[in-house]
Amino acid sequence: MSQGTLYIVSAPSGAGKSSLISALLKDNPRYDMKVSVSHTTRAMRPGEENGVHYHFVAVDEFKALIEQEAFLEHAEVFGNFYGTSRLWIEEMLANGVDIFLDIDWQGAQQIRKMMPQAKSIFILPPSREELERRLNARGQDSEEVIAKRMEEACSEISHYNEYNYLIVNDDFDVALMDLKAIIRAERMKEGKQAAKYHDMLERLLAQ
Amino acid sequence: MSQGTLYIVSAPSGAGKSSLISALLKDNPRYDMKVSVSHTTRAMRPGEENGVHYHFVAVDEFKALIEQEAFLEHAEVFGNFYGTSRLWIEEMLANGVDIFLDIDWQGAQQIRKMMPQAKSIFILPPSREELERRLNARGQDSEEVIAKRMEEACSEISHYNEYNYLIVNDDFDVALMDLKAIIRAERMKEGKQAAKYHDMLERLLAQ
Repeated sequence: MSQGTLYIVSAPSGAGKSSLISALLKDNPRYDMKVSVSHTTRAMRPGEENGVHYHFVAVDEFKALIEQEAFLEHAEVFGNFYGTSRLWIEEMLANGVDIFLDIDWQGAQQIRKMMPQAKSIFILPPSREELERRLNARGQDSEEVIAKRMEEACSEISHYNEYNYLIVNDDFDVALMDLKAIIRAERMKEGKQAAKYHDMLERLLAQ
Repeated sequence: MSQGTLYIVSAPSGAGKSSLISALLKDNPRYDMKVSVSHTTRAMRPGEENGVHYHFVAVDEFKALIEQEAFLEHAEVFGNFYGTSRLWIEEMLANGVDIFLDIDWQGAQQIRKMMPQAKSIFILPPSREELERRLNARGQDSEEVIAKRMEEACSEISHYNEYNYLIVNDDFDVALMDLKAIIRAERMKEGKQAAKYHDMLERLLAQ
């Protein structure tokens, strides 16, 4: 069996990253793709489920996990800790499951250092106008709030060239097919196929 | 605009390489994929067309083209010369067209040296039994002839690990989708997308 691939997926808000990943995993009959569920110390919110949205843990537990080098990356945001479990990911990859890590450019840089074999995908909005429209979808926010969101989006986008693949999410279905093509093509890579078809190749080459 | 990709496609006879490439190019509404047409000094056969199956040239002309370094690779087979035009390929790639080179492992090695950015795909039969069956499809050949074909096939297959991608052609439609996924994914690579969306990225990142 061949190893799964770790995919780092980043995007500015408004690019449609979460919808693309959800749509991808809905159509997953062989259960060979999963999203990594992060650990966090922040309080659970209504509608959230432990083990689905996050693994909710206490601060002491989180700090112990850091000590054990249990995280591929971790960060503190507004006083809460967030981390990506190394063990779970390594186990899934060993079982041939592709893992998707929804993470920003800073997390992506940390992951690349720890797992250089990871493939990274950046999702872009189709234009500045469309990004502005998406960031103001409810039409209820002040210009100042929109401008701040736009600035954050630009800051994330400025790291696009650190990624292996760029998907432009103009038409959602096209972008989803682009994403599926990347995953399918990565599975065709020589090393993965040679592992998957090891026995057949031996028989083909036997004298 | 982004550069096209040069694809080297190799396979043993019986793997279905020609059928896959034909099927791929039939479904090509944007004319952004083409097969490289080789030059040859051998005589035209009934049904062949100059410029379609080969560029048929005289030996003197072929030798002059070698002198001009007009070929990415060339070889002599049974006293006839065959060569791959560098100029035409470079022009097509510059126009964003993906080029497919149907070539054996020896030609592939030469091309990789000249064009290290080329991507190579090896097509495998699904099993030894199926390969034998396909090499004896007409059921009219002697055991000796089949054994010779099998030996040639194995010799080609033994180079599978020099390629970027492996496709196993068990179900033709699945193999065709694998091939299409590879081409689609290669077009999503950061460098190609950054070139294609250069203006949009500048606008997204403008202050």
